Amino acid sequence: MRAAIMRNYELVVDEYPEPVPGPGEVLVRTRACGICGSDLHALLHARTFVAGMQEASDAAGSQGDDDNGMDLTRDVVMGHEFCAEILDYGANTRRQHAPGALVCSMPITMVGGRPVSVGYSNARPGGYAERMLLCEDLLLPVPNGLTEVRAALTEPLAVGLHAVEMARLHADDVPLVIGCGPIGLAVINVLRHKGVHPIIAADYSPMRRKLAEVMGADVVIDPKQHSPYESWAGLSELSRAGERMGVNPLNGQPILRPGVFFECVGIPGVIDQMMVGARRGCRFVIVGVCMEQDHIRPLLAINKELNLQFVLAYTAEEFATTLRLIAEGELLTDPLVTGRVGVAEVPAAFRALANPEAHAKIIVEPWR
Amino acid sequence: MRAAIMRNYELVVDEYPEPVPGPGEVLVRTRACGICGSDLHALLHARTFVAGMQEASDAAGSQGDDDNGMDLTRDVVMGHEFCAEILDYGANTRRQHAPGALVCSMPITMVGGRPVSVGYSNARPGGYAERMLLCEDLLLPVPNGLTEVRAALTEPLAVGLHAVEMARLHADDVPLVIGCGPIGLAVINVLRHKGVHPIIAADYSPMRRKLAEVMGADVVIDPKQHSPYESWAGLSELSRAGERMGVNPLNGQPILRPGVFFECVGIPGVIDQMMVGARRGCRFVIVGVCMEQDHIRPLLAINKELNLQFVLAYTAEEFATTLRLIAEGELLTDPLVTGRVGVAEVPAAFRALANPEAHAKIIVEPWR
Repeated sequence: MRAAIMRNYELVVDEYPEPVPGPGEVLVRTRACGICGSDLHALLHARTFVAGMQEASDAAGSQGDDDNGMDLTRDVVMGHEFCAEILDYGANTRRQHAPGALVCSMPITMVGGRPVSVGYSNARPGGYAERMLLCEDLLLPVPNGLTEVRAALTEPLAVGLHAVEMARLHADDVPLVIGCGPIGLAVINVLRHKGVHPIIAADYSPMRRKLAEVMGADVVIDPKQHSPYESWAGLSELSRAGERMGVNPLNGQPILRPGVFFECVGIPGVIDQMMVGARRGCRFVIVGVCMEQDHIRPLLAINKELNLQFVLAYTAEEFATTLRLIAEGELLTDPLVTGRVGVAEVPAAFRALANPEAHAKIIVEPWR
Repeated sequence: MRAAIMRNYELVVDEYPEPVPGPGEVLVRTRACGICGSDLHALLHARTFVAGMQEASDAAGSQGDDDNGMDLTRDVVMGHEFCAEILDYGANTRRQHAPGALVCSMPITMVGGRPVSVGYSNARPGGYAERMLLCEDLLLPVPNGLTEVRAALTEPLAVGLHAVEMARLHADDVPLVIGCGPIGLAVINVLRHKGVHPIIAADYSPMRRKLAEVMGADVVIDPKQHSPYESWAGLSELSRAGERMGVNPLNGQPILRPGVFFECVGIPGVIDQMMVGARRGCRFVIVGVCMEQDHIRPLLAINKELNLQFVLAYTAEEFATTLRLIAEGELLTDPLVTGRVGVAEVPAAFRALANPEAHAKIIVEPWR
């Protein structure tokens, strides 16, 4: 079958062996698969990416999130944000869904009793191939009428849902979203769904700022014009009800909410900037994946008693909830999709995504 | 009066102007004052220390923890872990405690309606001077019979109590304390008081490992001999009741507790080591004050969904609770005190504290 393959640290379009479902597995046709920023990272920083996965997997020990890793000397087909169509079943399956049914799944399948990544392993191809193997037990039927492209956004929006859940928002927290790429937009999307106001967001790109507004940000800041932190500080002095939080009995001055900052950029130096801009007690949710070493000043973080919550992916429940929220129209999808390509155009799409003015989410449709 | 003074980035013993209590203030005689690792840091990294205080204070804005800062071109008398004796009162005081009464206080006083640090400001001398000014409203009487040296340990032990409170311990969390200097020992002391078992601790120094055992650590590790993280992992597989936590339904392997690691070292590189050694979901409480820039690898923290809680000081309630717990014999004090000196010996005591085999806590008794 045709696939966009990571081979020798490059993306090439070539034939890939036809997948054959193992016990408990389902053969599916990839109908739509989003290109994720992590895939761009994985291609650009392949060794660091693999070492990081391995280190996390080793430390997790027997926790079951071992993914058999990626051997970079062998072919890898990435793509983990997919919606697919049932084609056939392997042994030991209940054949719950009829051929032709649309399904979503977390990008994991079970091989020999062990979880294996779909999209970041040599053992199973991801969604930049015409066909994939998924685990029957993890399939979620796409609710009737939801298009395959909308359903394929379940995975990236679940990342946003998980990040917001991990933020443990209080009723009067005012969130600041730093970076409005697909992850930042997913966070804003979920915050709007949860009824949080005001939502403040910042990005250097006019196109991304525009999308942030569409997703539900109340105030969108161009960091070239205004400090996001100062803008946030001004807005967060007023509670949702428009009243101050009270006064400090020691000095009669207003008590300010500590705030929640979402890091959705993932480049070195952003966390330090956020630490400089934060108030005492601020919580950071770090969703942007920084592949390089970064620097922090612990003294600054200590003096402000900051909390840094690093987050990854989502739970199975959050994934299923996200698909339901998309089907119910509670989460926005269409404005995020800025391009659709076939397998042959995946390498060009990776290059196009480097320009934040050109695209937000490009969907691969390998059947084209 | 005589004082050990930070002057031109050195510690000198000289005369310091006799303090005169302002409105709401109390003149006290310093009876005992512990030397804190932060004072060693403040002397060694004076500019960074002051810049860090200023940055935190600016960002806190009007939150009332402004301390008027330290101008390093002028004299500063440090010392913020003290027990003192009432001598006289300023204007607008209720004279609640009789002269001669022993008191403790958080190291803050109010000057012109604004909080000022006692121990890190030019405006008020700290406990390395014969006399100090405290705020009447913040005084805590030392319970009858508690010695001044024990009471002076309220401040450093309150740091431990606060760190443990901020850890939000679950019933079956197994804590690992990295570093058994005064802060690590305070954390162990509080964990033992709270009935947490097992407590695992690590330090390169034999004397500090011995003290960690005395404070209540169940297992004390020499990192030269064994990895603290591997030792912790082995011990934490068993819950308090000696039973495993359950199994992962996906692969039948045991579910391991994520753990809570206390960083009580404060030198660059320790946080990265902890990230390598941690399991997915581990919470770090960062109490050790690292004055230099440090490096982290966000990818590692993201892959493990780590949480970093930086902590500073304590609340007023935690401070009062700590004094009560010392008076009730719930927190240990005597084994921590390894030396007592007069003001003239403070510079030598600072030098002696650089050797972890020589001392844990040295108490300054300026009346000597």
